[in-house]
Amino acid sequence: MWFQKELLLKPRPRGFHLITDEIILGISQLKNFKVGIANIFIKHTSASLSINENASPDVRRDLETHFNKYVPENASYYEHRFEGSDDMPAHIKSSILGASLNIPIKEGQLNLGTWQGIYLCEHRNQGGSRKIVVTISGETYE
Amino acid sequence: MWFQKELLLKPRPRGFHLITDEIILGISQLKNFKVGIANIFIKHTSASLSINENASPDVRRDLETHFNKYVPENASYYEHRFEGSDDMPAHIKSSILGASLNIPIKEGQLNLGTWQGIYLCEHRNQGGSRKIVVTISGETYE
Amino acid sequence: MWFQKELLLKPRPRGFHLITDEIILGISQLKNFKVGIANIFIKHTSASLSINENASPDVRRDLETHFNKYVPENASYYEHRFEGSDDMPAHIKSSILGASLNIPIKEGQLNLGTWQGIYLCEHRNQGGSRKIVVTISGETYE
Repeated sequence: MWFQKELLLKPRPRGFHLITDEIILGISQLKNFKVGIANIFIKHTSASLSINENASPDVRRDLETHFNKYVPENASYYEHRFEGSDDMPAHIKSSILGASLNIPIKEGQLNLGTWQGIYLCEHRNQGGSRKIVVTISGETYE
Repeated sequence: MWFQKELLLKPRPRGFHLITDEIILGISQLKNFKVGIANIFIKHTSASLSINENASPDVRRDLETHFNKYVPENASYYEHRFEGSDDMPAHIKSSILGASLNIPIKEGQLNLGTWQGIYLCEHRNQGGSRKIVVTISGETYE
Repeated sequence: MWFQKELLLKPRPRGFHLITDEIILGISQLKNFKVGIANIFIKHTSASLSINENASPDVRRDLETHFNKYVPENASYYEHRFEGSDDMPAHIKSSILGASLNIPIKEGQLNLGTWQGIYLCEHRNQGGSRKIVVTISGETYE
C-alpha cells in the first residue's frame, strides 16, 4: 500500500526547527498503516532534514552555532558566491545533514524514540516555504 | 511483505563499533527475502548508525578521534551543558552521521560491498543499551 | 512491485560529480512506477552519494575544497595510513555524506526538486569504477 503527498512547510528563519507536529498533521493517512516506512524528502539544496532531540531548544541553537563555525560564511576558498554569503554554506550543510529521513511506522504512528523529533534545518537567511514529499509504504489495517 | 523487529544492542563504550553480526543474528527473517530493503533505525539522539570499513580497527579509532576534534567537548559556544560535556557533541555527531541506514537485500542477505560493515557510533561515555528498529520490506521466496 | 539492478559507474577523478543522467539511463524500469521509492546505494567505503545543486559546477568544486579542509589528509592523529594519504579522509567523508539515497518516485520519474541532482562523491585519487545498487519499490501502472 502506497501513499505520497507534498507538503508546503510554513517559512522559518535560519536555524534548526522542530517540525514533527507539522509533518504529522499533514499526513492523516499515517494512522491507517500497521507497519511501514515513512520517507520524508525535502526538495531543496539549501535546507535539510534531521532527527534530533525534541525537548531543549538550546540543542537546536547549539546545532546552528556549531554548523556556522565549521561551515563558515565567506570562506576565502568559496568560488560560488553570487547568491549571497549564506548560499554556499547552505549547500555544504545540506549535503552533511541530508535531504531525506526514513522512519519506521508501527501501529499507525512514527516509531520514534522518546526524545526524537524531526528537524527542518533552514540554512538560508530567507528560505521561504519549503517543499516536502512524504511517501509512505506499508501494510494497512484493512 | 513486511517485517519489523526491535533489537536491544549490548552496551558499548564511546566510539565506533562494528555491529553487522549482532544485527544479522537478530533478524533471522532476512533469509526469506529474495529482494528488498532493510531500514535500520536507532531510537536515540546521542548515538548514530553508519556504514564503513569492516576490517581495520584503526579506521574506527580514527573516526572517533576525528569527530572528537571537529565536534569538541566544552566548546565555549555550547548553551546545552547540563547533561555533561559529552552530551551536546553527541547530539551534533548524531545529526552529522544520521539515525538510519537503508540497505538493499538480495537473495536473503544484505547486499553490502565486500568491505562494508554496519557501525554503531556511540557518542556518550555511558550510553548503555541502544534500541534499534529493523524494518524489512520486499518479496519473499514463497 | 520490486526491482533491483547493479550499475557500474564510469571511473571519475576525485571530487563531486553530477551523475543523475547516468543513474536514470541505467534504470529504464523507473518509468513503470506510478509511485514509489528509489534506494540508490554505493557498495564502497571511500566514495559516497549525496543530493545537491545540479547547475553551477562551482558548487561541486567548493564542496571538494571544503571537505578537504575539514577532513584533511595526513592529520597527525590518523593511525590508518597504509593505503595512502587519501584513504582515511575518504572513509571519514563517506560516513559524513552517507552510502545511500532514498528518493521518492512520482509518475515514472524521480520526484526531485528543480535544482536537485545526484552526486557521486569520489574521495579517492584513483577510485576506479564504482558499484551502485538501485532498488525500486512501488506501484506500477499495470
